[in-house]
Amino acid sequence: MIWRNVVELDKTIKERRSIRRYRDEDIPDSVIEELLDLARYAPSSMNGQPWYFIVVRNDETKRRLAEIKNRHCPPEKRMYQADFLQNAPVVVVVCVDRERSFNRGVENAVLATANIMLGASRRGLGSVYMSAYRMDDPSISEEIRQDLDIPRDVDPITIIPLGYPGETPQPKKLRSLDEVIFYENFGKK
Amino acid sequence: MIWRNVVELDKTIKERRSIRRYRDEDIPDSVIEELLDLARYAPSSMNGQPWYFIVVRNDETKRRLAEIKNRHCPPEKRMYQADFLQNAPVVVVVCVDRERSFNRGVENAVLATANIMLGASRRGLGSVYMSAYRMDDPSISEEIRQDLDIPRDVDPITIIPLGYPGETPQPKKLRSLDEVIFYENFGKK
Repeated sequence: MIWRNVVELDKTIKERRSIRRYRDEDIPDSVIEELLDLARYAPSSMNGQPWYFIVVRNDETKRRLAEIKNRHCPPEKRMYQADFLQNAPVVVVVCVDRERSFNRGVENAVLATANIMLGASRRGLGSVYMSAYRMDDPSISEEIRQDLDIPRDVDPITIIPLGYPGETPQPKKLRSLDEVIFYENFGKK
Repeated sequence: MIWRNVVELDKTIKERRSIRRYRDEDIPDSVIEELLDLARYAPSSMNGQPWYFIVVRNDETKRRLAEIKNRHCPPEKRMYQADFLQNAPVVVVVCVDRERSFNRGVENAVLATANIMLGASRRGLGSVYMSAYRMDDPSISEEIRQDLDIPRDVDPITIIPLGYPGETPQPKKLRSLDEVIFYENFGKK
């Protein structure tokens, strides 16, 4: 019984792609809530469930998020401009309460984000992982915090645009399993 | 067509639980490879695909990993002793190549780990998220690096024990959606 439809999960994971172009079509609130419902089933350190999710539809807020991301973008990532954020009907900002995170705020946020992205993909929605902070540049999360009224003891960690895909990415070439799996010790096949 | 079996993904996400007791039953290599195959479909910064996976079955290595985890466990997490690691038939250590990670090594590793845990759950396997590093205590990853011959430019990030569940956790009480979802700004319903 457990094995039934294993392929469905695998298919969802394998078919999910990073989508940065969206059709001009809104996403019902009920669908967004389904995704955030999935997010809170992620594991969290000490079961702290530290998550807060801010659902952004306001165009001006999206524009400012894109502007902040672009301005703080490190030189090697300039090929990924954030302007497309403005074309996503919905942007979810995933935050964590610091006290509830037990020093694992990033991990907790990323695990919830993974559920959002998989749930989105399974529903025919596109998304792409974006960070709301940089270790070496606290000003990015500081600016996002101010824009979204996020309190001082809560940290924004990821920014997830969501929309029905307006692009079909080329197939991605993955590193071979043989190259990345070792047994017992690093380097040992 | 896209909507077909949405419920299967949701079910997998919602039924996954952290499992720390395992039956005395081995996991075929082919199943472990399926999980690591799923892991490499995770998104990664700049598509760097920085992952390396070390599959540990050696009892002595598991014992040492448990000992390292216990010795570096912060006081508030002492209720989660790592001894159970030794009873997992397989432990996967997820590592990332630093250069391929573009300063997002933790995020990249956690996204791959999420796929492993969901794939495991869907196949009736239990797992639990464990960290292989602490920002404030580099010695933990240093000791793991030495034990597993991990090179200096690769960082161990997560430790995932896998086994057929020997426990059925009590249902988890989740924070209400109403408490954690805001619209446009933090605190706004």
